[in-house]
Parts: sequence; structure tokens; C-alpha cells
Amino acid sequence: MGTALCAPLLDRGHQVRLVGTHLDVAAIEALRRDGIHPGLGYPLPAGATYHQLDELAGAMAGAERVAIGVSSAGIEWAAAAIGPLLPPGVPLAFITKGLEWMGERLLTEPEVFLAGVPERVRSTLRPVAVTGPCIAGELIRRNDTWVTFTSRDAEAARGWAEAARTAYYHVRTSDDFTGCEATAALKNAFSIGWGIAAGLAERRGDAATAPAPGSFGVATHNQEAATFAEAIVEMARLVELTGGRAETVFGLVGVGDLLVTTHARNARLGRLLGSGLSLDQAVKRMEGATLEGLATIRTIGRALAAWDAGGRTGAADFPLMRHLLEVTAGERAAIPFEAFFGGRG
Amino acid sequence: MGTALCAPLLDRGHQVRLVGTHLDVAAIEALRRDGIHPGLGYPLPAGATYHQLDELAGAMAGAERVAIGVSSAGIEWAAAAIGPLLPPGVPLAFITKGLEWMGERLLTEPEVFLAGVPERVRSTLRPVAVTGPCIAGELIRRNDTWVTFTSRDAEAARGWAEAARTAYYHVRTSDDFTGCEATAALKNAFSIGWGIAAGLAERRGDAATAPAPGSFGVATHNQEAATFAEAIVEMARLVELTGGRAETVFGLVGVGDLLVTTHARNARLGRLLGSGLSLDQAVKRMEGATLEGLATIRTIGRALAAWDAGGRTGAADFPLMRHLLEVTAGERAAIPFEAFFGGRG
Repeated sequence: MGTALCAPLLDRGHQVRLVGTHLDVAAIEALRRDGIHPGLGYPLPAGATYHQLDELAGAMAGAERVAIGVSSAGIEWAAAAIGPLLPPGVPLAFITKGLEWMGERLLTEPEVFLAGVPERVRSTLRPVAVTGPCIAGELIRRNDTWVTFTSRDAEAARGWAEAARTAYYHVRTSDDFTGCEATAALKNAFSIGWGIAAGLAERRGDAATAPAPGSFGVATHNQEAATFAEAIVEMARLVELTGGRAETVFGLVGVGDLLVTTHARNARLGRLLGSGLSLDQAVKRMEGATLEGLATIRTIGRALAAWDAGGRTGAADFPLMRHLLEVTAGERAAIPFEAFFGGRG
Repeated sequence: MGTALCAPLLDRGHQVRLVGTHLDVAAIEALRRDGIHPGLGYPLPAGATYHQLDELAGAMAGAERVAIGVSSAGIEWAAAAIGPLLPPGVPLAFITKGLEWMGERLLTEPEVFLAGVPERVRSTLRPVAVTGPCIAGELIRRNDTWVTFTSRDAEAARGWAEAARTAYYHVRTSDDFTGCEATAALKNAFSIGWGIAAGLAERRGDAATAPAPGSFGVATHNQEAATFAEAIVEMARLVELTGGRAETVFGLVGVGDLLVTTHARNARLGRLLGSGLSLDQAVKRMEGATLEGLATIRTIGRALAAWDAGGRTGAADFPLMRHLLEVTAGERAAIPFEAFFGGRG
């Protein structure tokens, strides 16, 4: 996604220095060789230079803006590596998505990052986060894409938005930083649930004995739609519990991003789980893909344990998320569909 | 949909008398012959009898419940034909979806129906409406389906829900009758918009000259997701303007039903429009399919004209719906994507 974001930045005339982590050595080599990231298969426009990690300090020198797109697992490493190199007051943006449970509250990845940055720099930073539905392979091909840049500092969000928007990269802004970031993380988790429902349906279809002509191959859009809507309802309440606004879930950042994510890797993991694989088997089939949804589910599990204990939430709340917790703990996928939308009530 | 709803009713042990309109002569004949509706291709369980319209009065005699599933264009006819036969106080449910602009306000189809029913009966009725994501071909195959039965009378909604729910037909209830009904109608209109966006993307892809390997055939999920989210945002505000609750849009009845409807006929009409056909050409290609979304768009056009004149809404609001109005007035599809989510703001 970091590479794809270079497309609008380059189209806007920025010089871009793209630095890979130790996980990106081959990608940086390929970009240097022919300007194409192997995971995207499409060239960036001219104007970028590509750097291995050992060139980080040189690449950061004189940077007017810095954007960070490491995986969530690497955010503390990134704070240690990049933090000391940040010019005070530099406009700083995050593509990294995720939530961490620390000190009895949920923290977004930018907050975790900032905690690891030297204090004299930290106090000068107004972090911006990029949220909303964006498949990298579409953005780099200049397919129309709408995103929300969010910050607690409206001016910081507008500054990054103005620097990045193009005719095809439609940037909106939001001051609901916590809500946008929580939603961006949660959609990965819930897309696993959406995938599980789809996989369960496929397995049922395969196992069925045909009672009549036409009974095979019928879609399960009714169940997909209900699972999607239940995910939105649960996301909205979880976002409110983190201190964000439910309305953020009900637009581009929530509904839109969950929809795009049903086409992405976390949903594919869910489909494998629903088809009957164990968690270990399913993760193995994903061949090392970053599965940030799993980490977010575990984080929400810690939060729910605290909220349940404090009476803020109850066992009947969040049936889909609670089942995702069971699955990440090793149980086989078996979504409690009857509990959706408050149960029979 | 009326035929599909018989499946859970029959599975619950009800005797069902299914009466067709003058449009359903062939379907009723087929159901009598082999128990299969030609549009569904799957048999109903035993326990139903099938009746042509001239048997309506006999079929209604002694009915303990009545459900009406005519198309929205037939709702006034239905009131005239069925209204005088309704036993006072009979539990009455509507599958018919749509909105009408009458006397400077939006009316739901059950309200239009009731206006045509003799007064002595009307005052005894507590109409219930069936809303939410339900593809008929899936329901009749007993695929898991979640719906919301809504009524201003909570007891009436619960009564119908209890009569109809099965292990696979998951019925929830809502007292937001106006919101549920407005949402059910609007989702057909907005699914045309979703289809137009998809058709425009396909046409662009076809016309493009390949600038690099891999540039063909890439999906446009980012644009789909944004169009879907914009539809939800516009639906929520329109539902509030009709006197319903936005929260109804943000769950099963809105998000869920719009998602299911992207697979259905109104979205297919939109795709044809987006591919470059005129409205007349696109409607012709749909070969007589019921396209209730078009009627809803025209109804909302009349409402928006009044709301704009009264200052409740402004020209910058509802860019997607306003474009749908232009398309139904004969303009070629060209969604104003830049105006989504409030524009650059």
C-alpha cells in the first residue's frame, strides 16, 4: 500500500523516496530494476527513488513529509528506527492499521508509534492516518479511489489531503481520528467473519443431497448480507466503546472499507476457516500473507474481557466478534447466526 | 417473493392459499401442475393450494392472516380488489415495496393500500411489512435469511414474526415502520446507481488503451465500495426526511438489503445504463422485469423538488440520487463521483 500511495504523490509532482524494511529487500530491488513492485504488477510513474533499509537516514534527510506503511507488527520497531530521524513538526501520515490494548485502553498504531518517539519530537507531531476503502492494485492503476485522511488536528489532515489528492484519488477528511482508526482495524477482523460465513455456506452446499432440480449452486447472498450488516452493527458499537463515533462506521470508512475488504486476504482466510480448516491449516494456506485481522481480534478479546468485567458490555453482545475470538483460540468455525441482530428478542 | 414466503409459512404448518393476479396466470398454472413457480425453479412443500384471481373471494374466506405481495404499481388495484374482502382485524402483512408522493408527503405502499380500503375495516387493521435482505430463490431453498417485520403496532409485528419464523427464516422486529419501508424502497433506487457505477467502470476498462502489462481486467472494488457507502449515506438522510430513523439504514434493513440488491435486477438495469445504453434501450433489455427502483427515483424527485423549495434540502445534497433523476429523465449515465461524501469540502 505504501508503494501504491506513491502513485498520486508522484502524479502531484512530489519527489518520493520509498524505503523498504528488511521484509522488502526483493521488492525494492525489483522497483530499482524496472519500477514495478512484484505484488502490484504495474509501474509507478517517474520521480521516485527506491532505498533499502540501510539508506533510511539518507532518505529521510530533508524530507518535507513522511508517510509510514509498515505492518502493524512492526510499528514499535518503526518508532525506534524512524522516530529519531523525524524532523520536528514534519507532516506525518500513517497507512499502518491496527489496535493495541495497553494500559487498560485501546491504542491506535499512530499512538503506539508516537509513544516510541523521542519526547522532543513527539510533542511537535500532528499525526494523520489514511483510512477508507483502497485496494492497492487499483490505486496504482489510477482507478478512482475515495479515502479519508483523519487527524485530531484538522489543519494537519487538510495539509496531507491537499498534498495527495488527484483527479482519481478522492481525499476526504475527518476529525474522528479514533473512530476512523478503530474502524480501519476492525474491518480486517470482521472480514474474517464474513469469509467464515461464506465458507460455511460453500461447505453446506457441497455436502447437501439435491432434493430437487436447481437446488445446487444457488447463491447465499441473504446470509452474506446479514453477516455484513451484523458486522457493521458490531463495529459501530465497538468504535463507540473505543471513544470514536458510530457515524464513521456508517459511511466510507466503515461500510465502504468493509465491502472492499470482502475481496481481500482476511476474507480469504475466513473462507478457508469456514470451509473446515483449522486456524493453523488456514494460516498455512495463506502462505505468509499479512493477516492483521487476527491480531485485531486478539486485541478486542483483551478489551472485551475488561469491558465485560466492568459491566460496559455483556455476554450477549457482539456474537460475531465473540465467535471470531473462539476461532482464534482454536475452535472450529460455527457462527451463531441465530444470535445476529439481538437474537429473537 | 410471495411464493417464496410460503416456504416458511408451510414449514410452520400453516395452510396457505396462494392467489395470483392477472399477471400470474401462467405461474399459478405451473404451481398447480407441479408445485414449482417458473421464476423460482424449486418446489414448495405440501400444504398450499393455488388460485387464479377469479377464486380470490373463496380463497379469502375464513383467512386467519393475509399477506399481500403485488407489485407496487398494483397496490391501488389490490386495495380495491382485496380491501372489501378483508375480515376486520385480520393480521395483514405486506411484501410490496415502494413509496408514493401524495398530498405533499411520502406514503408507503401499505398506507396507499389502506387509503383504498373501506373505512370500517381500515380502522381495525395494524399493517405489518416485511423488509430486509431476501432473495426469493434462496428463501424457497431454505437458505438462511434474516428479515425485519415492522409495524407501528409492536404486538402486530411480533404476531406475524411468531407465525412465520423457522430455523432458517430469522425474523426480527422493528417499530420504525416508516424508516423500514422507506429504506426498502430506496435500496431498489440506489442499486440502480450502484449498477451504473459498475457499468461505467466496465465501459472505461473496455475503451482503455493498455499503458502497461496488467492494466486490463483489474477490478474496480474501490469505486464500488465508495458508491455503496455514498448510497448508504444518502439513504440515511432521505429516510430521516421521510420521518424514519437513520439507524434503520445502518443495519440489516439498509446495509444488508442494499448489499443483496446489488445482485438483483435493479442493479442489472443500472449496469446496462452505465455500459452506455439509453434508458429505453436498457429497460427493453430487461424484458419486462419489474423495476420498482425507477418508480421510487421518480417519487423521490417529486419529494426533493418540494423539499428544495422549502429549504429542507439543497442542490449539493444527494449527488447520486440527483443523477439517478437525470438518468430517469433521459440523460446518459455519468455519475458525479467528485461530489461524493460532500465533495472536496
